[in-house]
Amino acid sequence: MTPTIGVFDSGFGGLTVLRALVERLPGARYAFLGDTARLPYGSKSRRTIARYAVQSAQFLVAEQGAAFLVIACNTASALALDAIQDAVPVPVLGVIEPGAAAARDASHTGDVLVIATEATVHSHAYSGACKARGLRALEKACPLLVPLVEEGWTDHPVTKQVIEIYLNELRAEAAVQGLEPDTLVLGCTHYPLLRRLFEAAVRPGAKVIDSAESAAKAAVDLFNASSEALLRPLQRSTNAGSASQTVIKCFATDSVEKFERLGSRFLGRPVGRVELVDLGG
Amino acid sequence: MTPTIGVFDSGFGGLTVLRALVERLPGARYAFLGDTARLPYGSKSRRTIARYAVQSAQFLVAEQGAAFLVIACNTASALALDAIQDAVPVPVLGVIEPGAAAARDASHTGDVLVIATEATVHSHAYSGACKARGLRALEKACPLLVPLVEEGWTDHPVTKQVIEIYLNELRAEAAVQGLEPDTLVLGCTHYPLLRRLFEAAVRPGAKVIDSAESAAKAAVDLFNASSEALLRPLQRSTNAGSASQTVIKCFATDSVEKFERLGSRFLGRPVGRVELVDLGG
Repeated sequence: MTPTIGVFDSGFGGLTVLRALVERLPGARYAFLGDTARLPYGSKSRRTIARYAVQSAQFLVAEQGAAFLVIACNTASALALDAIQDAVPVPVLGVIEPGAAAARDASHTGDVLVIATEATVHSHAYSGACKARGLRALEKACPLLVPLVEEGWTDHPVTKQVIEIYLNELRAEAAVQGLEPDTLVLGCTHYPLLRRLFEAAVRPGAKVIDSAESAAKAAVDLFNASSEALLRPLQRSTNAGSASQTVIKCFATDSVEKFERLGSRFLGRPVGRVELVDLGG
Repeated sequence: MTPTIGVFDSGFGGLTVLRALVERLPGARYAFLGDTARLPYGSKSRRTIARYAVQSAQFLVAEQGAAFLVIACNTASALALDAIQDAVPVPVLGVIEPGAAAARDASHTGDVLVIATEATVHSHAYSGACKARGLRALEKACPLLVPLVEEGWTDHPVTKQVIEIYLNELRAEAAVQGLEPDTLVLGCTHYPLLRRLFEAAVRPGAKVIDSAESAAKAAVDLFNASSEALLRPLQRSTNAGSASQTVIKCFATDSVEKFERLGSRFLGRPVGRVELVDLGG
């Protein structure tokens, strides 16, 4: 089986990570799985998210021959990365650590704001990863942003207002806590589609960190630096294939038509035919 | 086992139907199941929705002794009512037919607007049920309304704008089709929490139909008029118990804390302790 980079998300938001990966590693073979039958993960419990994510990771490794996995879903990275790493015999990278590392590089004050789904925020995965890097992080769940992106209102006055309301609530809380945030982490793979609105809404000079970009960069670094036997066939394959065409195969557990219709917005190119898979449940 | 009225929803929106049922049939015993591990159904396919809904209905009948089932979910009613009726040996009532019947009683022009989830709209279950009653129905998916209700923005300027945008799009389409709608059907069990905003947003004289209310009324009518052997023990029980206390037992497939926290808004009283159940998947 040709070595493959597996990319997993609860839906198709993770296609923003795949897009950033393809820009950095063209010529590779990618398998993307969106667990659309069970999305969104963001409002569910750790136990349920871990069960769904492990099944999805096993599909990519066992059935699609993934030699390297990127968990392109903040919620699954926050709540199930350990469970996935235990369940599959290949290297697994999440999006939280790269996002926190990028925030550390960007912040001068050491105070950062993180917006994400409810489950990601409740896990405090970002504040933990930030604290480990000497940063203070204030997190907030923004449950309206994913539906606004999926409605296609990525440049809409209502979305601007919702962003302003969420950011104002965050700033008020930061002031109460005596924080001086200068960096905003977009801790959900849907949010890169709102990046311009966020860049317009933050204070002058503040940085907006896109966890999709950070994760793709970290994946390529890890991939290039790795001496693990598991990655060698994949490295040979992508080196040999650098002049050849990128191969992307997308799978979904439900609603492939919707995936095909909306996915291209996130991937920045047509997603092609999406194959329906049944993981049970 | 004490005869029980089973009420099922993908989440806790269906508690608006349970609330309306309890007002009309106090003293009965109710079992409510929210399939919160797999919500929302509204964006999923017919095949997946039917599988989830049948498992949920079987739990209420086989494990909780439900002698009568109300499918308090427009999406499941629209896409899986037949599958549920085939799978369980008790009478099953959905919310679509009662909603369409109430629209026929309310409308003078014979033209009605229906707002619902994506899956309900794509099923055209409402327009079919309306057409069977001589009504012309124009349907529209309003995917932002459920997240706005769950965010608690039930009387928020942003929600008012979103409602205005959706209604204006509907009115423009109605004009193109030469319709003169005088009735708006709220075809999702979350929407009753926005009822006041809708009543303020429709044109003077227009009626707003709450499918939760209509379904509860139809359930009680069916229940009282029924001569089916299956309903007799339930009727005896509720007649005998009319002076006694209503018993409500709630079950969820995930996130019982969230259910307990948000559920009371929909039920209009505390939901009590919610029991976690595992339906697989």
